Amino acid sequence: MDRYIITGFSGFVSEHFLDYLRTLERPVSVLGIDIKPPDFVSDQLTHVQWDFEKMDLLDRDELEKKIINFRPNFILHLASYSSVAFSWKNPVESFLNNTNIFLNLLEVIRSVDSRIRILSVGSSEEYGDLSGNQETFREDDMLHPISPYAVARVSQEMLAQVYAKGYGLDIVMTRSFNHIGPGQKEIFAIASFAKNLVEMKKRSVSSPRLITGDTSLIRDFVDVRDVVRAYEGLLRKGKRGEIYNVCSGMGHSLADMIRQMASILGIQVVTKRDERLMRPNDNKVIIGSNEKIRKDIGWVPEIPLKRSLEDVLHYWNQR
Amino acid sequence: MDRYIITGFSGFVSEHFLDYLRTLERPVSVLGIDIKPPDFVSDQLTHVQWDFEKMDLLDRDELEKKIINFRPNFILHLASYSSVAFSWKNPVESFLNNTNIFLNLLEVIRSVDSRIRILSVGSSEEYGDLSGNQETFREDDMLHPISPYAVARVSQEMLAQVYAKGYGLDIVMTRSFNHIGPGQKEIFAIASFAKNLVEMKKRSVSSPRLITGDTSLIRDFVDVRDVVRAYEGLLRKGKRGEIYNVCSGMGHSLADMIRQMASILGIQVVTKRDERLMRPNDNKVIIGSNEKIRKDIGWVPEIPLKRSLEDVLHYWNQR
Repeated sequence: MDRYIITGFSGFVSEHFLDYLRTLERPVSVLGIDIKPPDFVSDQLTHVQWDFEKMDLLDRDELEKKIINFRPNFILHLASYSSVAFSWKNPVESFLNNTNIFLNLLEVIRSVDSRIRILSVGSSEEYGDLSGNQETFREDDMLHPISPYAVARVSQEMLAQVYAKGYGLDIVMTRSFNHIGPGQKEIFAIASFAKNLVEMKKRSVSSPRLITGDTSLIRDFVDVRDVVRAYEGLLRKGKRGEIYNVCSGMGHSLADMIRQMASILGIQVVTKRDERLMRPNDNKVIIGSNEKIRKDIGWVPEIPLKRSLEDVLHYWNQR
Repeated sequence: MDRYIITGFSGFVSEHFLDYLRTLERPVSVLGIDIKPPDFVSDQLTHVQWDFEKMDLLDRDELEKKIINFRPNFILHLASYSSVAFSWKNPVESFLNNTNIFLNLLEVIRSVDSRIRILSVGSSEEYGDLSGNQETFREDDMLHPISPYAVARVSQEMLAQVYAKGYGLDIVMTRSFNHIGPGQKEIFAIASFAKNLVEMKKRSVSSPRLITGDTSLIRDFVDVRDVVRAYEGLLRKGKRGEIYNVCSGMGHSLADMIRQMASILGIQVVTKRDERLMRPNDNKVIIGSNEKIRKDIGWVPEIPLKRSLEDVLHYWNQR
C-alpha cells in the first residue's frame, strides 16, 4: 500500500490531492503535516486513510521522528509561502522559510532513507518574462527570477538537484504554473476577483467596479484538479532528477479572466487600477510548454478554462 | 574620503585589498568586520586608516548599528564559507549561512541607505561544467550549480538582483574564479599542494609523493592581488546591477599546477589519488571570459601564473 506524506497539508492543493486519490480506488495511507490544521473536514474517504499532525517543518528532529514512524514511500512537498505579493513585503521570511524547511526535509531523507521519492513543487515564476519570439517556456530554458518568491523557488530547485545528483536522493521537480480552482484563498488574483464579482452580483451593485493591480499580465492557468493528477503521476512515473512544467500551454490576461467571469455571471464590470496593488517588478507574460510531462507520463490538462471559472464562481457563491 | 566596510575581513582577500588601497595613495577609511579577528597584524598603513570589529553578521541589529555609525559609501562583502569541499560535508550550514548573512546585509542597507554601493562576491562554481565547443564562460551563460556551495552563490546573486532591480539597491556582482596567492589557507587545493611540496623539499624526501583528489580538473586561476584590484575598480566603476567575471581567461589542470610548482622548487614528485578527497560531483573544466570587465572598467590581470606560484611557494617557505 502506498504511503504519502504531504507537507503544507492545510493548503487547497492537498484537499484536491486527497480527492483525486479517492477516485483512483487504490488503498493508500496519507499523513498530512502543516503548521496549522486544515480548514477542510473530511470523513475518512473510501480507500484513503488519512491523518493530520500539526508540526513546524523547521523542527528537524520532530520531522525525522514522523518520517521514521510513518515510513512513507512518497513525499509531496507542498509547504511554502506561495504568494509573490507576500514575498515583496516579507522577502527574508519568504526566502528563508522556503529554503530552510526544504533543506530540513532533504537532510532528514538523506539520513533516514534516500529511496523515498520526493516531489519538489516549484513555480513558473522561476522563468521570468517570456519575450522575443518565444511562445512558451520549456524546462531547459534559462531562468530569470525577479521576485524574492521566485528566487526562493529556484534555490529550492537547485538544492533538489544537488541532493538528487550529489547525494543520490530520488527527487522529481515541478515548475507549476498559476493554479485556479475551488478553495483557493483570496490572496491570489483570480480567487479575489471571483469573490468580489460574486458579491457584486449578489448585491446587484449598479455600476460595479473591480479594484485590480496590472490586468495586462498574461499567465498560464491550470486547474488545481489537473495539477494534483499531474503530481500523483509524477510521483509514480516522473523521471528522477528531472523538472516538469505543470501547465495548460495557453496564456490569458487577467483582464480576459475577469471578462470571462463577468460574462458567466451575466454582469458588466469596470476595472480600476490601484497602484498599491502593483509590485516592484513583475513579469508580463508567463506561458509554459507541457510537452515534456505529456511525453514522459502521459498527463494532459483535462478541465477547460470555462469550467474552472464556473467552479470557482460557484465556490464563492456557496460561501 | 571613501569609507569601506569589508565583511569577512579576516580572510586572505581583505589583507590584499588593504594592501592595494595603500598603493593607491588616496586617504580612505576601512571598517573590517568578521566573526573572528584577523591573523594579520598590520600597522596603520599610510593613507589607509582601518579598524576591526568582531561581530556575527547573523546579528542584524548589531550590523545595522555599525553601518549607521560608520556611514560607508562602499561595502565589500567577502564573508562566506568559500570551500566547495566543506559544503559537501555541511550543506545546510554552508547554504544557510551564506544566504542568511547576505539577506541581513541587504535588508540593513535597504532600511538605512540604499545609495551605499555593495560588491557581492560570487563564484565561477555557479557556472557548472564547460562543455561542448565553448571555450570560456560568459556572464550571460546559463548556470548549472552542482554543489551546495555553488547553489548558495547562485542564490546570493539572484537575491542581489532582486534587491537591485526590485528595491533599487546599488549592487554590483562578481563571479570570481579560483584565487591563488600568498596567505591562502591550505583547505584550498593549490595552497595545500604548495605547502606539502615545500615541506618535501625542505625535508629532502627521497621519492616525494603528493596525495591529491582529481588532478585532471581544469580551473581558471587568478592572483588574489589582481582580484582585489578588480574589486576596487568594480566598486568605483562597475555598472549597477551587472555581473562580472573576475578571471584570467586561461585554464590549467591541477596536475599542471603541481608540475609547475615542482619545477620551480627543482623537485620531482609523484601524485597519488586519495578517493576520500574526491567530491560527490565535480566540474571538469571551468574557464571564464574577462571581456566584460576589461571593457567596462579596463581591468586586466597583470600577474603571470609563474610569479603567483613563486610567491605562493615563497609564502609557505617562510612559515
